[in-house]
Amino acid sequence: MRKYRLMSPGPTPVPEKVLLSMADTIIHHRTPQFGAVLKDVNIKLKKVFCTENPVLTLASSGTGAMEASIVNLLSKGDKALVIRGGKFGARFSEICGFYGVEAVNYDVEWGDSADPAVVKKLIGDNPGVKAVYSTLCETSTGVCNDIKAIAEVVSKTDAVLVVDSISGLSADEIRPDDWGVDVVVGGSQKGLMLPPGLAFISLSPKAQKLIEGSDLPRYYFCLKAALKSYAKDDTPWTPAVSLITGLNKVLDIMLEEGIKNVLARHARLAEATREAVKAMGLELFAKNPSNAVTAVKVPGNVDGLALVKKMRDEQGITIAGGQADLKGKIFRIAHLGYMDEYDTISAIAGIEIVLKQLGFDLERGKGVAKAEELLG
Amino acid sequence: MRKYRLMSPGPTPVPEKVLLSMADTIIHHRTPQFGAVLKDVNIKLKKVFCTENPVLTLASSGTGAMEASIVNLLSKGDKALVIRGGKFGARFSEICGFYGVEAVNYDVEWGDSADPAVVKKLIGDNPGVKAVYSTLCETSTGVCNDIKAIAEVVSKTDAVLVVDSISGLSADEIRPDDWGVDVVVGGSQKGLMLPPGLAFISLSPKAQKLIEGSDLPRYYFCLKAALKSYAKDDTPWTPAVSLITGLNKVLDIMLEEGIKNVLARHARLAEATREAVKAMGLELFAKNPSNAVTAVKVPGNVDGLALVKKMRDEQGITIAGGQADLKGKIFRIAHLGYMDEYDTISAIAGIEIVLKQLGFDLERGKGVAKAEELLG
Repeated sequence: MRKYRLMSPGPTPVPEKVLLSMADTIIHHRTPQFGAVLKDVNIKLKKVFCTENPVLTLASSGTGAMEASIVNLLSKGDKALVIRGGKFGARFSEICGFYGVEAVNYDVEWGDSADPAVVKKLIGDNPGVKAVYSTLCETSTGVCNDIKAIAEVVSKTDAVLVVDSISGLSADEIRPDDWGVDVVVGGSQKGLMLPPGLAFISLSPKAQKLIEGSDLPRYYFCLKAALKSYAKDDTPWTPAVSLITGLNKVLDIMLEEGIKNVLARHARLAEATREAVKAMGLELFAKNPSNAVTAVKVPGNVDGLALVKKMRDEQGITIAGGQADLKGKIFRIAHLGYMDEYDTISAIAGIEIVLKQLGFDLERGKGVAKAEELLG
Repeated sequence: MRKYRLMSPGPTPVPEKVLLSMADTIIHHRTPQFGAVLKDVNIKLKKVFCTENPVLTLASSGTGAMEASIVNLLSKGDKALVIRGGKFGARFSEICGFYGVEAVNYDVEWGDSADPAVVKKLIGDNPGVKAVYSTLCETSTGVCNDIKAIAEVVSKTDAVLVVDSISGLSADEIRPDDWGVDVVVGGSQKGLMLPPGLAFISLSPKAQKLIEGSDLPRYYFCLKAALKSYAKDDTPWTPAVSLITGLNKVLDIMLEEGIKNVLARHARLAEATREAVKAMGLELFAKNPSNAVTAVKVPGNVDGLALVKKMRDEQGITIAGGQADLKGKIFRIAHLGYMDEYDTISAIAGIEIVLKQLGFDLERGKGVAKAEELLG
């Protein structure tokens, strides 16, 4: 009997009481009963997203909402500045390509965060940029971008700022209204502690105005239709009823803890993880690390793929490896959602055990000791 | 304590053991463990869809798969013949419009089924029709289209036949490979007895060939990407893990009962409902009624909206009213998925009680007596 421990940056563990809430009787979505649930959810989502803008809930993975943030705001031939410092920044650029939007790519070295001054320069150099796309936490590298500073630049221009906060939300602070972020994209299976299947998108008045002029084709992801339904606490298509029941529950849990405390918890676990791996003699990959996920360089003599595999198959702890060019070169431990101090300590202990097995020279318990010091 | 009885044509009740299976620990999707689940699901889906073609599972409502069946098969300016005999046929036409596909609409009077001879004539009159879109069960009218006969016409041409079987699947027979149906679109929240949030699409070799030549933009619903992942028992985007766990379970339940028996059960409940409402002095709306849902005309002196509302709010039985032009004019009782004889009898009894309350002249128990006779 070895327990299954999910420590990846999505999906993340779902609290047992939320899992059970989703096992409740399925109710019909076009009824006052379900309308009341949606109304509740819509109010709470604004609080969790720290915005007064509508936060739309879509039945899809996060990628669907990323696509929605392009096809509803832009037109064919439009220019978009895309901060591309990892797999998910690259995805924005890829979607632009599929729809005939010209992506001006700001290629940030993987592991670095975007420089707001470069964003400013690129907007200046490329007149007509209608939207700037960035990740909050770039999940593939564990980097947190300085959205506040980027928003300061973008909000002074005609462009809207779209931030993929799928993995960052509730781990790395984002204050859309205070900072001037127009569109925040989210997903259910990260800090929101739900199974995958829901995506979110908030829209500032500036973004809503862009929708009016956009000519790209869309149907399922039509945000004009979604906004119209949203105003009546409804959805244009059949919503994912059980996931929304769970959403209502997790939002309660998060608001009861308080968003500040939720952020502080993620910060604390992330900090402890960073210091623990450093104490083990390892190096962090991200220069400006996110509190959603910690990316760690695999030490030279260790097989990075074996590390992740042994963690999962022998220790029962699912962490993530590196993606694309980073395959085998980094591993990633998440701090997202329903994860606590002893989950973090377990992950660190697991890493110590497996690194030792793979021939890495370390003093047992050194990483855990550091974590105990910071989490105790 | 009045129980909640869901008798609408989607969502439908989910068996308790399936609800609980979805409350199991969330596992990571990019692992051999989840790959094994997907492999299992993919094999079983073929059996339930009665096809050897791949059946792709998408994280979206059924509408997403309807859109996928257009944007992946056609190109801008292409012609599609759309059988439009209700709200869902109309949706195909609408999606075509959004993407610059010319929809040749075959407008069937709501309540009638499509005439295969007219389909044949329209294909002849409109050279270049690349795809024909039909519903199996047109949920909005309760009509079942004669897909076998339509397929006989279409399969002799270069066009592919796409059938929206979202509500029809497992209630009305469809044999894609035997009949020559190229694309079958499905949804989770109907006969498949799951919550909403998954959509399905099967693709014949003829349909897969069309994908190669299609130039419409798509990303999240890109079936080329989905097919590539499918071949490795994977998905291009994060799948709806908990719903797929439930899917694995319902497919077992359905295959254990046997698809023939599942169809026979739906036929039996539908037949009993039709005869019961007729015994109550009511008239059926659909000329060729589906076994997924029975649409009944609201009698002249009765307020149709009040009927559905009283059923839901006072009797605890959620049936559906009419949509669009049929609002207040029909009501619809489903026979879909996890519904049995006594659910059906309860719905009929509820209709008797409420019709009586609304001043309709009927003999109490007459409808139920007929149902007992047919279901006992």
